[in-house]
Amino acid sequence: MSGRLIGRLLGIGVGPGDPELMTLKAARALAAADLVVHFAKAGHMSHARAIAAHHLKPGVEELPLHYPMTSEAPRNGHVYRDALRGFYDAAAATLAERLDAGRTVAVICEGDPLFYGSYMHLHVRLSPRYPTEVIAGVTGMSGCWSAVGTPIAQGDDVFMVLPATLPEDELERRLADADAAVVMKLGRHLPKIRRALDRVGRLAQAIYVERGSTVSAVTMRLADKPDDGAPYFAIVLVPGWGQRAGERA
Amino acid sequence: MSGRLIGRLLGIGVGPGDPELMTLKAARALAAADLVVHFAKAGHMSHARAIAAHHLKPGVEELPLHYPMTSEAPRNGHVYRDALRGFYDAAAATLAERLDAGRTVAVICEGDPLFYGSYMHLHVRLSPRYPTEVIAGVTGMSGCWSAVGTPIAQGDDVFMVLPATLPEDELERRLADADAAVVMKLGRHLPKIRRALDRVGRLAQAIYVERGSTVSAVTMRLADKPDDGAPYFAIVLVPGWGQRAGERA
Repeated sequence: MSGRLIGRLLGIGVGPGDPELMTLKAARALAAADLVVHFAKAGHMSHARAIAAHHLKPGVEELPLHYPMTSEAPRNGHVYRDALRGFYDAAAATLAERLDAGRTVAVICEGDPLFYGSYMHLHVRLSPRYPTEVIAGVTGMSGCWSAVGTPIAQGDDVFMVLPATLPEDELERRLADADAAVVMKLGRHLPKIRRALDRVGRLAQAIYVERGSTVSAVTMRLADKPDDGAPYFAIVLVPGWGQRAGERA
Repeated sequence: MSGRLIGRLLGIGVGPGDPELMTLKAARALAAADLVVHFAKAGHMSHARAIAAHHLKPGVEELPLHYPMTSEAPRNGHVYRDALRGFYDAAAATLAERLDAGRTVAVICEGDPLFYGSYMHLHVRLSPRYPTEVIAGVTGMSGCWSAVGTPIAQGDDVFMVLPATLPEDELERRLADADAAVVMKLGRHLPKIRRALDRVGRLAQAIYVERGSTVSAVTMRLADKPDDGAPYFAIVLVPGWGQRAGERA
């Protein structure tokens, strides 16, 4: 063959936490990767890496990408955005070198790669230039409502994913307008979400889930959850099922 | 052991279409099932059955559940609802007999069992009485945006799933209020969705996907799709990425 060898970029969803919730396709793709890339906070182990651990080729080369430290900059400010942009630019350049050398580069992602995932920042930089395949994964929210056994949306339900960072009045307005919802990125926003759900009459059905689909899952009625903070990745489920009981079951 | 043997109900998500997008857990659970149950339209093969075909134990007992014919009744009328309720009641009773006999009963579901799936109707009837496990699956919509390589939602995006059956003014109002959206159950509603997206200035980014994540996938800009109807399971993706370009990438 003439022409230079070119590598392949894989965005691999490894699912919500239980390694058994990886897809067959993800497991096979990992076994064929030359370089396995994962995102993590500085000083922390990547969640995706922990989930995929048993499916990495022994001795495969790995590249952890550590998010820039940002404790000194507000998350919605331009300093933070510029730092992140530089971080993704540099990461993409590093991956491009490997792709130019003909390597199969697999970026592993918790949940689904194109649904609220950091992989997207590499995807938009690299997929126009390199053959790219995205392997869908089970989302964190699917893992949570399945672990709890809570039907989330049905029939003609309008379903919403709402970040807990929204202002309280906007959260309330949107929750009043949804048949079913997931509120994510809880962190310190729990009291606000509880108040908003209470005002729209949905607090009684709301379910708090922490580390859904892992052995250390914590789940309870949101009404019973103490206001002592929640992990960033905890979510609240507001099931649609039962909202219009006369039409259901 | 004293006491009677009791069976186990499994709700198994088999993913969006590509059999490789089944999870490891789903594949293993199917290999242990005594009875495999699937929903289908009368006269049609179950999609879930087709996806899972290679993972069924040879000769395993199967129970197809055919939705009642409803061409004579409007889908939102009480005749239709009563027929469906009777159908789910009878199906649950049949499964309960097998569960009482100690069998492991696996209901296989396209996508994710608790996200807009028929399995939920069996789940709410049976899970209070029998040990039940739900195995999350990759949703149809994840399969679609991954096949197209379109980042759908990011950061603090508000993401919505909207049924195409909504009235046109409501679709428009909700699309104007979403960072990212999926419109599902397209069928004959395509012109209405196109008009609503055009009025909120989002038609240019909208992507039409038919049979995403299967070998016969069809995908194009929604603006280019002829108004000649669409399959019920086709969807429209309205990506959030790029909406606030200054803050992204």
